[in-house]
Amino acid sequence: MPLEQITGQVSKRGYEVRLPLAPGEMIYGLGLQFQSVLQRGRKKTLRVNADPVGDAGDSHAPVPFYVSNLGYGILIDTARYLTIYCGDKVTKDGPHPAPAGDAQTAARVAQLPKSFERYNMDQTSEVLIEVPEAQGVDLYIFGGPTMREVVQRYNLFSGGGPLPPRWGLGFWYRAYGQARQEDVLALAEELRSNQIPCDVLGLEPGWQSHSYSCSFTWSDKFPDPDSTISKLNSKSFHVNLWEHAFTHPTAPFYKTLFPYSGDYEVWGGLVPDFLGKEARAIFGDYHEKALIANGVSGFKLDECDNSDFTHSWSFPELSRFPSGADGEQMHCLFGLRYQDTIQAAYKRRNLRTLGLVRSSHALAAPSPYVLYSDLYDHHEFIRGVVNAGFCGLLWCPEVRDAKDPEDLIRRLQTTIFSPLAMVNAWYIRNPPWKQVDREQNNAGHFAEGWEHLEAVCKQLIETRMRFVPYLYSSFVRYHQEGIPPFRALVMDYPDDPQAWAIDDQYLMGEDILVAPVTAGQHARDVYLPRGTWFDFWTGQKMDGGRRVNVDVPLEQIPVFIKSGTLLPLAVPTLHTADVESFQLNVRAYGPGTLECTLHDDDGTLKPDITTLTLIWAEDESQGSVKRSGSKGQIRYSVQKWERRLT
Amino acid sequence: MPLEQITGQVSKRGYEVRLPLAPGEMIYGLGLQFQSVLQRGRKKTLRVNADPVGDAGDSHAPVPFYVSNLGYGILIDTARYLTIYCGDKVTKDGPHPAPAGDAQTAARVAQLPKSFERYNMDQTSEVLIEVPEAQGVDLYIFGGPTMREVVQRYNLFSGGGPLPPRWGLGFWYRAYGQARQEDVLALAEELRSNQIPCDVLGLEPGWQSHSYSCSFTWSDKFPDPDSTISKLNSKSFHVNLWEHAFTHPTAPFYKTLFPYSGDYEVWGGLVPDFLGKEARAIFGDYHEKALIANGVSGFKLDECDNSDFTHSWSFPELSRFPSGADGEQMHCLFGLRYQDTIQAAYKRRNLRTLGLVRSSHALAAPSPYVLYSDLYDHHEFIRGVVNAGFCGLLWCPEVRDAKDPEDLIRRLQTTIFSPLAMVNAWYIRNPPWKQVDREQNNAGHFAEGWEHLEAVCKQLIETRMRFVPYLYSSFVRYHQEGIPPFRALVMDYPDDPQAWAIDDQYLMGEDILVAPVTAGQHARDVYLPRGTWFDFWTGQKMDGGRRVNVDVPLEQIPVFIKSGTLLPLAVPTLHTADVESFQLNVRAYGPGTLECTLHDDDGTLKPDITTLTLIWAEDESQGSVKRSGSKGQIRYSVQKWERRLT
Repeated sequence: MPLEQITGQVSKRGYEVRLPLAPGEMIYGLGLQFQSVLQRGRKKTLRVNADPVGDAGDSHAPVPFYVSNLGYGILIDTARYLTIYCGDKVTKDGPHPAPAGDAQTAARVAQLPKSFERYNMDQTSEVLIEVPEAQGVDLYIFGGPTMREVVQRYNLFSGGGPLPPRWGLGFWYRAYGQARQEDVLALAEELRSNQIPCDVLGLEPGWQSHSYSCSFTWSDKFPDPDSTISKLNSKSFHVNLWEHAFTHPTAPFYKTLFPYSGDYEVWGGLVPDFLGKEARAIFGDYHEKALIANGVSGFKLDECDNSDFTHSWSFPELSRFPSGADGEQMHCLFGLRYQDTIQAAYKRRNLRTLGLVRSSHALAAPSPYVLYSDLYDHHEFIRGVVNAGFCGLLWCPEVRDAKDPEDLIRRLQTTIFSPLAMVNAWYIRNPPWKQVDREQNNAGHFAEGWEHLEAVCKQLIETRMRFVPYLYSSFVRYHQEGIPPFRALVMDYPDDPQAWAIDDQYLMGEDILVAPVTAGQHARDVYLPRGTWFDFWTGQKMDGGRRVNVDVPLEQIPVFIKSGTLLPLAVPTLHTADVESFQLNVRAYGPGTLECTLHDDDGTLKPDITTLTLIWAEDESQGSVKRSGSKGQIRYSVQKWERRLT
Repeated sequence: MPLEQITGQVSKRGYEVRLPLAPGEMIYGLGLQFQSVLQRGRKKTLRVNADPVGDAGDSHAPVPFYVSNLGYGILIDTARYLTIYCGDKVTKDGPHPAPAGDAQTAARVAQLPKSFERYNMDQTSEVLIEVPEAQGVDLYIFGGPTMREVVQRYNLFSGGGPLPPRWGLGFWYRAYGQARQEDVLALAEELRSNQIPCDVLGLEPGWQSHSYSCSFTWSDKFPDPDSTISKLNSKSFHVNLWEHAFTHPTAPFYKTLFPYSGDYEVWGGLVPDFLGKEARAIFGDYHEKALIANGVSGFKLDECDNSDFTHSWSFPELSRFPSGADGEQMHCLFGLRYQDTIQAAYKRRNLRTLGLVRSSHALAAPSPYVLYSDLYDHHEFIRGVVNAGFCGLLWCPEVRDAKDPEDLIRRLQTTIFSPLAMVNAWYIRNPPWKQVDREQNNAGHFAEGWEHLEAVCKQLIETRMRFVPYLYSSFVRYHQEGIPPFRALVMDYPDDPQAWAIDDQYLMGEDILVAPVTAGQHARDVYLPRGTWFDFWTGQKMDGGRRVNVDVPLEQIPVFIKSGTLLPLAVPTLHTADVESFQLNVRAYGPGTLECTLHDDDGTLKPDITTLTLIWAEDESQGSVKRSGSKGQIRYSVQKWERRLT
């Protein structure tokens, strides 16, 4: 991009920035957008909002960062609700849109899909940004040369992706919101005895003596919290606790926090000023000593976004905080600094965590938190996976309710092939596979033949367990190289216009393409980029560089493996602490000498990561294992090698 | 309201206003809101937006005016996107919400429906308003003592409601967007020969030689525009032309307008600076001489809102205009001043008009324009009728496409009982009652048995014609007394908590309650306020003060007449110019001496309005007609008197 064409200007409204857009140039990013992937031709106002039902820019995690398919990225360093016009604004006096001048641009434009024409995407234009109130703004420009490298640089500049605990990549189940400690223990027992894998059990608001707002102390539903946690831990369950930051007068640190909170209450609770070190220390210290020390492995940080746009429960934008921030700035940063606060407590204990959070913002890559939403459209949930990868975010398309078993299976498939595989059953006493109807479920009436549905779900969850080694290594690459483990096709195929607008498929790790299906679909179109691909389930070989219509039997989410992939699949176990989970079946897809890389470490906060390379030479009957890097532990071993050529 | 409790404060972000809210106090208004009627407990940011899919305050016509059930209204005089928090914001240091202190308030709170509890509506609270950038703001406070009087005062302060031409209250039909002049003449012929009433034919973009943006000159589809209009006029059709204000280079006044337009183009056209008298004069003068002088009766002023929030086609908020306004201010006022511009041209010709417009704002009551939307949810369209009446707006729940005949009939029923009864068939060559399927319709394939559907629609349109005298008099009251002809139940029953949240029923004129039905409903709940009511269709008498479940046969929209009403119904005619349309059948509902008032005038811009009172004494076998007021014309006569007692 010609840097000299970037201009800035103070106005009475704030600060304006203009950046050039070339013919055929596409723009992506701006955070967790649910409604659109391709941002060229759109206007977005980046307001923090828990209910982003339109395509106006509202988001749980709006991020003032965008990336261009021409191989650069722009971070606008602001905690204001900026407005960005991604092309299509033309001044009457200024240069008018013009078609491509040079041959390279003309060639790019010539490839534009027909459906792109209405946005004038074949013309020159500009990106126009307005930052309210600011008298100037810093832009950070990330070079490529490829789009993927831009995102890598952005993520590495942020600190690199998080290194999650291995258990975080297993299966998560959140228990009924009003469950008592004996219910939770019984649930744990049921999962183990029915042989349904599970690494994390989540507790919803009922664990607290007061919510909303939060007391952060155990309710009488949990008379023996420490022993309950300890029993769960002994069965290799990690415990994740729901909370939000709004601090009820009965919270032990309410009085200490009072001077370090905003002027407005939320649900009768204080809003901690997480931009100040005092609030972070008070809040984090309590969490460390009262909860983390007793075995709580992580938290679900709810409602740290801003739901004023539906019902007015959050603090207003005109709030004032001791740190000097107003409510708008605090909304932009509240989720991020809340994550930092809890993260610092885990760091002091030298523990890794993986948690859930409802809001985030710029430069969030290193934070071991995965976003979620109270919205629930399955298509939007899939689009969330596609979009999160542009901006250093992780997104969990959790399963909550399901309208029927088909819907349950389809949603479960998506979450299984996502950063965090979770069923959030806060609203039902029994697992959804026993009964999807809420009332019936809570009355203990199970659906006829539920055992079959449970078996299907169990098999899906086992599929998740098989991918843990692959996923863990993808996260290590996120951590070390900044490559998002889940990302849009365009990020790997920026020069393929057919990939530019795809919002219902994504890449998982280096070699796998996922094309989720929603309830009611009996077939779906899948775009396979250039190269050769293999159907994960049937092994069928397929030529890429084209759109194919595939059948979608209910029990199979379309997953394709790139030819040239050596795919290590674990033996499914009930949890990741089982040493059996390091036993691998390795599948080679396609001819030639193939390699893949795996990682292992001791699970500490800053581990020596040991790298393991699996190599299968073309002419050998099986592959071999090569260790490299540090002298740390390696638990993997291969029990089976398979090769698929056709 | 205790005025001394209103406070204001400058901040670095703009200006803040705080107003008290009492326990059980309800707030309404804020313009054409589609998602909610009762605003207490909600936050709204009043952005101008053509696609308000969420409940965040975005609206075609956001109006910074609200009215309280305690009998006062507040106008915030700003053309900024203000944010208003309608209760539920609490400062940690300030007074906390408290229940009612006095007996009157306690009694009000005691009546609150159970469903209101979650919003803390039984507590004291405050309305918090933030106006960006402003260093102060004028508040206009309208007294009651009743809620209806507040709205009357607001409307009269604005100049009173518009006096529409009588033909504007007939039936409107917008022709296929690409229709040629012969198609339009054939359509007119078909409507007359099939005896389907119609007063106004609308032409969509195809009439112009260029759109979008607009050339404002006839296309080659209309080689003889003047004779076409004249032929239509001679058959008592009024012609309404679609346009928007964005002025294409081929428009005859493009060059003259250039210096009086904003810095950004929209669809390659100029944005007239309607805040300056030059742009208004250039634009209005052309319309007067080139179109109005040749018989065009009105316009549909499209896209004067702001659709940046979906696809970025409008001018940005940071635009600059010669008048000094920026784009945000211009978006707030563009629709209003556009209406003024056209209205001024009609005034110069001493003609009344009634038109359509996509955006409006504060103090709009006198403007003879009815809002419409590209959104199409039937529930929201009904809610639009309910909400528009709080703020001096009129709303048209137009019929466009229908998914099946049931949907067509249900939607047509709603538009028949609305300020402007219109089918907008821009997308189909033939009337929707011949074929609801778009492709089939355009291929000329009519549905089997379409004649029956046409007959049902015809009967509904005739129902509209029967209500024209009643509606005209309701508009005269809007004009003279400020009483909205369509309004929420709460406006007439502010002391009835059951009426407070009703968003799917409304009052039409003084005496009629309308409860529209959407496709798929086979019965519906209707809340009948205190008193006695009669079913319009069956004459069945029903006790009010309760919720009743009524059957909804497809051909009947639930309409209820208050006992004590003398209802004048016209003989249905093909258009309002037919003198037969002044022949009345008068129905008396309930016992006693009943009266109603009708109005007639010569149709000029500032007419002498003659008032006619119909009186039916309890003991007479029929009523009588009493003339009062000016010596102007009276064309009404009664051909039949009927009384219904049980």
